[in-house]
Amino acid sequence: MTTPANVTGVSRVIISFYEALEARDWAALEKLLDFDIVYEVPQTHERVSGRSAYMRFNRDYPGDWYLEVQRAYEDDIGGAAEVSFRVGGKEMVNVAFFELSAGRVRTIRDYWPEPYQPPPGREHLVERY
Amino acid sequence: MTTPANVTGVSRVIISFYEALEARDWAALEKLLDFDIVYEVPQTHERVSGRSAYMRFNRDYPGDWYLEVQRAYEDDIGGAAEVSFRVGGKEMVNVAFFELSAGRVRTIRDYWPEPYQPPPGREHLVERY
Repeated sequence: MTTPANVTGVSRVIISFYEALEARDWAALEKLLDFDIVYEVPQTHERVSGRSAYMRFNRDYPGDWYLEVQRAYEDDIGGAAEVSFRVGGKEMVNVAFFELSAGRVRTIRDYWPEPYQPPPGREHLVERY
Repeated sequence: MTTPANVTGVSRVIISFYEALEARDWAALEKLLDFDIVYEVPQTHERVSGRSAYMRFNRDYPGDWYLEVQRAYEDDIGGAAEVSFRVGGKEMVNVAFFELSAGRVRTIRDYWPEPYQPPPGREHLVERY
């Protein structure tokens, strides 16, 4: 995304986080993380605890992936991001929720919504695109 | 959720939107919606266009569902919500992104992240919970 000039605070940290990941700039990434960061994927019940383990998770993550923040949002405590993700010719949307502590990322809940077939019973209420 | 006293603006609209849905308060819901609202489910490529169609989508939606906003976030244009959803004994997380126009909901992108099996190749990097 083209970062708006008025992006500050939590959104700025979230955007910097994804920029560091995309650049594989591990030194920049590490500076954004709380020592006790907890990263969770609620859909698979996977968890990574602690900065060194989470750095390894990212450095060693398989695949030639690319990501780009589409939008970043915030509240008093943390924020949310809507991210486009591409790996091996597959395009996905990633959604993540962040909590910060002293300006660093303390928790991440990372969601990967996959395509699915619409449930029956609402065909008359929608169109398909 | 217990709404913090300092929730205003976009987050307030998002929380009111879910409160109206949960209460089946259709008059309250309609007041929060732009006439030209577009509701999309990117995972299924379903779309509902226009306030009257979207009101019907919600009124006629099958199942005895309940929802509760866990967190609401915002940026300059819109916001995001992390919502717990319960239907027929099944608990789900719902994530939605909103854009507002003149204080009313103009677009919704609604995500329903389902459980999935972790992909192979990262077992050594995570624990399961």
